[in-house]
Amino acid sequence: MARNALNIEIPEKLDGLGALEPYQGVWTKLQKGWMSEQTVPPAIKARMPHTSKMCDSLEEAILKCNPQDGMTVSFHHHLRSGDDILVQAMTILANMGIKDIILASSSLTSAHEPILPFIEQGIISQIYSSGIRGAIGEACARGIMKKPFVIHSHGGRVRSVQTGKIKIDLAIIAASAADEEGNATGSHGPSAFGSIGYAMIDAWYAKQVVVVTDNLVDYPCVPPSIRQNYVDYVVEVDSIGDAKKIASGTTRITKAPLDLRIAKLASEAIIHSGLFKNGISFQVGAGGASLAVAKFVREAMKKHEIVGSFLLGGVTSYGVNMLNEGLFRAIFDVQSFDAAVSQSIMNNPYHIEIGAALYANPFNCGCMINKLDIVVLGALEVDVNFNVNVITGSEGDVRGASGGHSDTAAGANLTIVVCPSFRGRLPIIKKKVNNVVTPGDSVDIVVTERGICVNPKNIELEQKLKKAGLNIKKIQDLEIEVDKITGQPDPIEHTDKVVGVIEYRDGTIIDTIKQIKE
Amino acid sequence: MARNALNIEIPEKLDGLGALEPYQGVWTKLQKGWMSEQTVPPAIKARMPHTSKMCDSLEEAILKCNPQDGMTVSFHHHLRSGDDILVQAMTILANMGIKDIILASSSLTSAHEPILPFIEQGIISQIYSSGIRGAIGEACARGIMKKPFVIHSHGGRVRSVQTGKIKIDLAIIAASAADEEGNATGSHGPSAFGSIGYAMIDAWYAKQVVVVTDNLVDYPCVPPSIRQNYVDYVVEVDSIGDAKKIASGTTRITKAPLDLRIAKLASEAIIHSGLFKNGISFQVGAGGASLAVAKFVREAMKKHEIVGSFLLGGVTSYGVNMLNEGLFRAIFDVQSFDAAVSQSIMNNPYHIEIGAALYANPFNCGCMINKLDIVVLGALEVDVNFNVNVITGSEGDVRGASGGHSDTAAGANLTIVVCPSFRGRLPIIKKKVNNVVTPGDSVDIVVTERGICVNPKNIELEQKLKKAGLNIKKIQDLEIEVDKITGQPDPIEHTDKVVGVIEYRDGTIIDTIKQIKE
Repeated sequence: MARNALNIEIPEKLDGLGALEPYQGVWTKLQKGWMSEQTVPPAIKARMPHTSKMCDSLEEAILKCNPQDGMTVSFHHHLRSGDDILVQAMTILANMGIKDIILASSSLTSAHEPILPFIEQGIISQIYSSGIRGAIGEACARGIMKKPFVIHSHGGRVRSVQTGKIKIDLAIIAASAADEEGNATGSHGPSAFGSIGYAMIDAWYAKQVVVVTDNLVDYPCVPPSIRQNYVDYVVEVDSIGDAKKIASGTTRITKAPLDLRIAKLASEAIIHSGLFKNGISFQVGAGGASLAVAKFVREAMKKHEIVGSFLLGGVTSYGVNMLNEGLFRAIFDVQSFDAAVSQSIMNNPYHIEIGAALYANPFNCGCMINKLDIVVLGALEVDVNFNVNVITGSEGDVRGASGGHSDTAAGANLTIVVCPSFRGRLPIIKKKVNNVVTPGDSVDIVVTERGICVNPKNIELEQKLKKAGLNIKKIQDLEIEVDKITGQPDPIEHTDKVVGVIEYRDGTIIDTIKQIKE
Repeated sequence: MARNALNIEIPEKLDGLGALEPYQGVWTKLQKGWMSEQTVPPAIKARMPHTSKMCDSLEEAILKCNPQDGMTVSFHHHLRSGDDILVQAMTILANMGIKDIILASSSLTSAHEPILPFIEQGIISQIYSSGIRGAIGEACARGIMKKPFVIHSHGGRVRSVQTGKIKIDLAIIAASAADEEGNATGSHGPSAFGSIGYAMIDAWYAKQVVVVTDNLVDYPCVPPSIRQNYVDYVVEVDSIGDAKKIASGTTRITKAPLDLRIAKLASEAIIHSGLFKNGISFQVGAGGASLAVAKFVREAMKKHEIVGSFLLGGVTSYGVNMLNEGLFRAIFDVQSFDAAVSQSIMNNPYHIEIGAALYANPFNCGCMINKLDIVVLGALEVDVNFNVNVITGSEGDVRGASGGHSDTAAGANLTIVVCPSFRGRLPIIKKKVNNVVTPGDSVDIVVTERGICVNPKNIELEQKLKKAGLNIKKIQDLEIEVDKITGQPDPIEHTDKVVGVIEYRDGTIIDTIKQIKE
């Protein structure tokens, strides 16, 4: 048992994962030149000309890919809670009698709960994902799975695929429009979901790739976000999911006063950070306080006549409006959150669809997060060392997503975490978080309704914000303040068994998730 | 010494190339499942955030890439005879004292003749290219180089890079617009050259990538045809070349009566081939008779109200006009031939910029040539077995380019070679060509001013064309007819020394080029 740079115990190895490398620091591996892992070659393919890729059913396509026990099957989660393809495909594989499947979905949502029996039956024996929620998350925390699950970031997932930690045998890629050769997009069609960014690395590296669509269009499908030279088979199905749950019409800014208060405070921190000037780049989440920051930043940009460089992310129609207003020169879009975004991808060349590799892979020559000025992120819990938990809930269940949290935090010049200081009767600002996803070293400030806490490593920033008259307080003081309101919740009771690991974006292990005691 | 499927002697191995695999047939390797070569991994990279890629000079950028003797340096040829970057870079390397360089340019043009002394001095010891011309071609044929040069097709080049036959240490990519992170394009700027398709594979696989531009634009450069996550360094220079020689204003249709006559005949063959219907896809070269075929096909499409699927290639403004007129739904553009094309790439989402991998790599899951209906190609010589030479001249010098010739011929449903039956006093239709680039098995018809020759393997097509009243003759008869006019030129005198090889797109050797006797 070793301890990582956060003083968290990391087993030397785990059955089903092999040797584990403890987390060493945000950029330590790169700075020390240790990021020299080999990438694995992408799959070689060849195909006779003028042959058809079309299959009559998803069963037929999967059968043609020669499924085997122990195979790794991958999916993207751009269909969100409306996704119907992951469950369909896993049901087909289960019916074929395939077992010990490694499921590598870029994330898992409530739509995927029907696979729970497959996990219980050992048909799925391991999960790699950036997020796990709901009944699957609870079951995972209870140790239902044969082998430890791995929570990775969006950038870390690309690194894992490129270095062969995740060896995808079969990628099943749902598309809202595709043609007979597999050129595919999410940017139009009845089930449009916007960017198909998370699926790109799967298309490039998977041994076999199946594109599934409910909207087969005349050749060629434009834009060809996924390109035909990576696609083996194409299937048309009645529906790839529930369009209503795939994308809402337009993302709206919260009206909750607490969120707005936090967002206003965060925007003031941005304005006085020294980074608020022409050429600024910016990412916010789609959630309550996080998105609301965009509203205040937008107003301030107009007032101060500032023109930014790019918006990144996680793109909402609010961001598209800012592009159209000329507040930013471009959007880089790895994932879109509402229907209005899709049309912009299709029609605006400055709305650039990107894969997760360009978004956040630490193993490349300049991903977007490396150029990001400001990111505004949410949190389930934050501790007095600024470490952030976005994966496990107060009961110890797995109920969140790592997503781009640790990626953007590492890259951005200014990483802002916005959260209420407590929720219900539970403290959010704590002495120690249940699990660390994003290390405090990559977080600059935490903004709650009770004021702004600046990471002590960032003295200059603290001085600037103090000078601007903002309400700055020590995070230790805030923690005591919150403790007085909520008291300490009973600690979560765990067994010693590690049921999952949280991988940092560079492949080291930043934390483990232990089995909840029943 | 073995003989390949064309009965041409191929050495078992050559110093500087190793073992050679004789050509076996157009699709034999794939049909027999022998195309299972491993791909090599793309280079792993990592970079600290918020660091600059900008260098003050090309020297500085090259120095940062740690150049070594024996290295492979790659370039694209989209700047054509206006290119100034290849010579600049090779001069810098020569001045640094680097030697034994393997030069891997997607093609070489007259602009590159200043590197001749570097070849003579052994600074460049080997060349991989789709084309070699002028003084370099003459010198190559005279055996000036230490190691045998390799002529590959555009698709074959991608296969070579992906399988590590060409291991690029340093890719130098000229761009007509780029930003500080290396997002780069050829579609706008004073030196605009259109698609940057040939450079994409270099960016993906090279150990180090330098983008050179004379037009550094505000971040981000749109469209990001080359994306920043592959680029190590960026350099701004005064000029990447002579804009006048990079792109002409608009490609014009020939007015030469002979070319027009051949083109008209070829278009009639297309119209009666059975393929001339809605959904047709089409590629023509930019040269005389070849491009003129587009003129007649365009008229016929309008007359018969036919709407095609896609244009491929080698794109001219003539093709762009056909897209804009609604005659085709899309253009896939790996290389653009005139300035008018660049704007279309920038503004029309149905004008799709593609890399050479998607264009023609035989080792992927459906390149564009695999879906092509009709291609019209030129020739330096054609023999009675329909084998085509586009690389060596009547004196034995290297003076042409393989380009996409053998790729498109292999993929297209109907491959048409257009050429006069003789040029000056030299026969074009011959008993035996000096060198084979494209095997006759992949050529369907040859169209000259004296009529149409149909490959005897294609009986059905011959019947259709005869029924349409077209002037069909046996190629053997045409050869005799031409021989009566021109007589037999003196055979080229060679030594036994193999100075270069012509690689077929699947990596086998279809022919060798022998040293000319002085």
